[in-house]
Amino acid sequence: MSYQAPLKEMQFVMNELAGLAAVSQLPGCEDATPETAEAVLEENAKFVSGVVAPLNHSGDKEPSYWHDGQVTTAKGFKEAFRQFVEAGWQGLQHPQEFGGQGLPKLVGTPCVEMLHGANLSFALVALLTDGAIEALLTAGSDEQKATFLEPLITGKWTGTMNLTEPQAGSDLAAVRTRAVPQGDGTYKIFGTKIFITYGEHDMAENIIHLVLARTPDAPPGVKGISLFIVPKYMVNKDGSLGERNDAHCVSIEHKLGIKASPTAVLQFGDNGGAIGTLVGEENRGLEYMFIMMNAARFGVGMQGVGVAERAYQQAVAFAKDRVQSKDLAGSESGVAIINHPDVRRMLMSMRSQTEAARALAYVAAGIHDVAHHHADADVRKQNQAVYEFLVPIVKGWSTEMSENVTRDGVQVHGGMGFIEETGAAQHYRDSKILTIYEGTTAIQANDLIGRKTVRDGGAVAKGLIAEARATAAALGDGADFAAIRKHLEQGANDLEAVVDFVVNNTRSDIKAVFSGSVLYLKLAGIVLGGWQMARAAIIAQQKLDAGDGDAGFYKAKIVTSRFFAEHILSGSTGMRAAIVEGSAGVLGLPVDQF
Amino acid sequence: MSYQAPLKEMQFVMNELAGLAAVSQLPGCEDATPETAEAVLEENAKFVSGVVAPLNHSGDKEPSYWHDGQVTTAKGFKEAFRQFVEAGWQGLQHPQEFGGQGLPKLVGTPCVEMLHGANLSFALVALLTDGAIEALLTAGSDEQKATFLEPLITGKWTGTMNLTEPQAGSDLAAVRTRAVPQGDGTYKIFGTKIFITYGEHDMAENIIHLVLARTPDAPPGVKGISLFIVPKYMVNKDGSLGERNDAHCVSIEHKLGIKASPTAVLQFGDNGGAIGTLVGEENRGLEYMFIMMNAARFGVGMQGVGVAERAYQQAVAFAKDRVQSKDLAGSESGVAIINHPDVRRMLMSMRSQTEAARALAYVAAGIHDVAHHHADADVRKQNQAVYEFLVPIVKGWSTEMSENVTRDGVQVHGGMGFIEETGAAQHYRDSKILTIYEGTTAIQANDLIGRKTVRDGGAVAKGLIAEARATAAALGDGADFAAIRKHLEQGANDLEAVVDFVVNNTRSDIKAVFSGSVLYLKLAGIVLGGWQMARAAIIAQQKLDAGDGDAGFYKAKIVTSRFFAEHILSGSTGMRAAIVEGSAGVLGLPVDQF
Repeated sequence: MSYQAPLKEMQFVMNELAGLAAVSQLPGCEDATPETAEAVLEENAKFVSGVVAPLNHSGDKEPSYWHDGQVTTAKGFKEAFRQFVEAGWQGLQHPQEFGGQGLPKLVGTPCVEMLHGANLSFALVALLTDGAIEALLTAGSDEQKATFLEPLITGKWTGTMNLTEPQAGSDLAAVRTRAVPQGDGTYKIFGTKIFITYGEHDMAENIIHLVLARTPDAPPGVKGISLFIVPKYMVNKDGSLGERNDAHCVSIEHKLGIKASPTAVLQFGDNGGAIGTLVGEENRGLEYMFIMMNAARFGVGMQGVGVAERAYQQAVAFAKDRVQSKDLAGSESGVAIINHPDVRRMLMSMRSQTEAARALAYVAAGIHDVAHHHADADVRKQNQAVYEFLVPIVKGWSTEMSENVTRDGVQVHGGMGFIEETGAAQHYRDSKILTIYEGTTAIQANDLIGRKTVRDGGAVAKGLIAEARATAAALGDGADFAAIRKHLEQGANDLEAVVDFVVNNTRSDIKAVFSGSVLYLKLAGIVLGGWQMARAAIIAQQKLDAGDGDAGFYKAKIVTSRFFAEHILSGSTGMRAAIVEGSAGVLGLPVDQF
Repeated sequence: MSYQAPLKEMQFVMNELAGLAAVSQLPGCEDATPETAEAVLEENAKFVSGVVAPLNHSGDKEPSYWHDGQVTTAKGFKEAFRQFVEAGWQGLQHPQEFGGQGLPKLVGTPCVEMLHGANLSFALVALLTDGAIEALLTAGSDEQKATFLEPLITGKWTGTMNLTEPQAGSDLAAVRTRAVPQGDGTYKIFGTKIFITYGEHDMAENIIHLVLARTPDAPPGVKGISLFIVPKYMVNKDGSLGERNDAHCVSIEHKLGIKASPTAVLQFGDNGGAIGTLVGEENRGLEYMFIMMNAARFGVGMQGVGVAERAYQQAVAFAKDRVQSKDLAGSESGVAIINHPDVRRMLMSMRSQTEAARALAYVAAGIHDVAHHHADADVRKQNQAVYEFLVPIVKGWSTEMSENVTRDGVQVHGGMGFIEETGAAQHYRDSKILTIYEGTTAIQANDLIGRKTVRDGGAVAKGLIAEARATAAALGDGADFAAIRKHLEQGANDLEAVVDFVVNNTRSDIKAVFSGSVLYLKLAGIVLGGWQMARAAIIAQQKLDAGDGDAGFYKAKIVTSRFFAEHILSGSTGMRAAIVEGSAGVLGLPVDQF
């Protein structure tokens, strides 16, 4: 049940597909050379495999627990987090002026993937802290930045996102938590927040809660939500800790998975009011929260890739070890089950989907870096639009994919997969949260349709489709490439038809379009993921032709790309039919017939 | 978290699709009139909803446990089983001469579905006992029948299937358990069996283990396996219990799901040898075990339908109750989430797949009854071949389907779905065993290809495809029927192409064919399930035209059939491509590249 970061694969994707060399020439990214990146990834791989991964199964067996308002995290977590922050990993992508290392997202992303692959429950504390940092960087006052950023970036303190309330899940308009101004620049916060990841724990001195709440005169709905900083311990001017704030953990949840990660119910203001300070302006809380969420959503996408990779590695190890039945083509005695075609099919499905999702995410990270660092404002803007288009796909598709992959991981193990000691079932249970939190797949799909497709008339989507077609046209000869081309061209056609359907019908028949929203997101995922796999195959062939590097790796990349085309991308036409023609079946039943 | 048997739907399928009226005219089935069947189903529904369903969640929270060789089953199970057997439910389908009620499989099947829908863990004891009864009926001696059948059929004792050993899972050729003849007609059994469902428990006086083992001179492989009866307590001539046999439960497993069902490790012969008697002839054990397994496989298929139905009911209840966000088409305030298109899509997907799998299974049960009771031997033989073709599909497809459905059940609940108290996650965990035990989906697919498709040159498969085409041709006018026809015709074409591929290539390129084995099984499932849904739509329209019965129910059936066609059956072409063209991608990677 170990985890080894797939470094060769990560470096291939980072360098060859996502263009690290170009990113490292952007202003402010000069330190991020491929050599530096390689060293960073290797160091991080050593740390997560050695320190974090071994705590994954034990944390599931003996989760974090609550007693009398305190949460004791799973065995080893506190010490591992100390090592994590001391080595500077929390600050990898954050600004140097606040104690970070300022590396581009493209270099940070493989490290994030590794951390999640090693231990989803552990990595969540870093993911949420990253989100809090992003929000403060964007909307915090100078004083707030000076007070909170360095302790967060150096991992002395951790951060949380407090959005959900019992009546307000996907629907943040229903948030009721109140923020009452005290006339001294502070607010008193009253309310209950649920599902707060690492809302209470013992791994850091202080916890900085970012809380959505309403001021007394706020307009109703999402336009009346403000964002507040509510620290667990008040912070003195000199940065030392002051009084305990009136924000308390009253319980943690008993969950299907990620059991070592405490999911808190937080009660604000039961003893007079929790003291908070406003972030940015009143009533703009949702806008700031989206900054946090977009960072976190990309991170959750990497959780999907990470847990899929881990499940794949475990399934491969089992399939190579477990001897059962003779070879179908004939053998003297039993063979390892990796030789049985259906086991092989499941492993290839796991592998190819994980690789495709990874490739798409890293490419998005590279685009993010161009959007943030390029000298030309138009190039930045253009890339930002593409990045924002890709975020809901990276989040939604990678996590949906991880459910399938972890499921196959259990299946490869047969009966042993159902036994908790084996560990395969944990990945299956853990991954189920990924399509739910930070916005369910349907919420991602709403974003993809509304803000990312309809608003620009499908321009960004069509630009990507055109690039996919160009890749299809550039594929070489031979059966492998013919198969990839066939399905990539068909996929591009199907996706284009769907984008047209979405753009042309959202205003006139919104329910018909949203009946296929999640299918549109998944279709975009497989077509764009398939495009990256096709790009990878072309590059692999070039390397093979040049006799450059590890021939086995490059040949495997071509086979994996072909598998993806024939087994995953081949579903595009059916999905198109379901989206474009399928709304009557979705909507036709009256509620009382359910 | 309650369960209500979908009686109206069950009766529609049983009467209109599976032809109960015709079955009740078969010799020996005269008692099974539609009226009797209705009364039986209603009585059973009352029992399972009132007594068995309420134990589902509590049994998951506080599972059965082992102490010092004894297993204490989950709270309430013992008393519920007493009521179950006292009411005669264990004997529903078994011969009257041994204390059963002798009802046809078509009437028994809805009862089996209900029991599983109410509580998978509880129902397993009945499923395994059914299997033991089938094996004894077929291969037991008169003395064995006289001794064991009545106590099993009346539920005084329960039965188990002992196949698996640590090194022998899917590969029964690797069974090592030894059976040494004692010269007095008995054998001493030595060995370890694992994954024995209800291998030890406190719900019945005695447990009758059916055990696969090898006699000293047995040939190697599956041709040297014999089947033995090894009771927990020896049985005296007068039927009273004798000495404790040397078969002991040394532990039970800690599992992902079905936690209330004890999964035992049984140790035979550690104290001198467990005493067993041979069933039938030596070395024909696998053949007899297949009788048991075929009954059990159909039963596991019904577990898939049952748990899917339960997950659907729970998701619908939540979606009608949970208010979140305004209606997409505009509303003053928040609406129940069942009004949101993607929630509706998930519910329709759950509903339509459950209905299709149920329909196919009940139709198979009706065919089984014709195969067993028809006066004409040719008709019996023909129907038996069709039934045997359908068993791996009912088992494999219904259970794979149930994973998707229970997954959507969690997803509909959003964050609440991830919290164990909600209960949706239990169905997701429970269902994961169904694609594994009694032969994984790959094992079902091997059976479908080898014994059921290649052996008769695809004759049975093509016969069913022809019937599906006839149904497509009989679909009436209008958008709903046009959509159903389009996808059913395409599905039939795709399935036919795949059957041809399988028949024509299995001997020449077995690995290429088996690379798509599970996909072939799933394709057969959606096409044959879609065919049943199309039949249901035609009948529903006839009822509507005649003004006969519940119009809402029949309209819903047509919409659900259309959904199935456009959202599930529409995947057939992609699957065909993956099967017929996709083996190079499955097999192309050398083992050392994984």
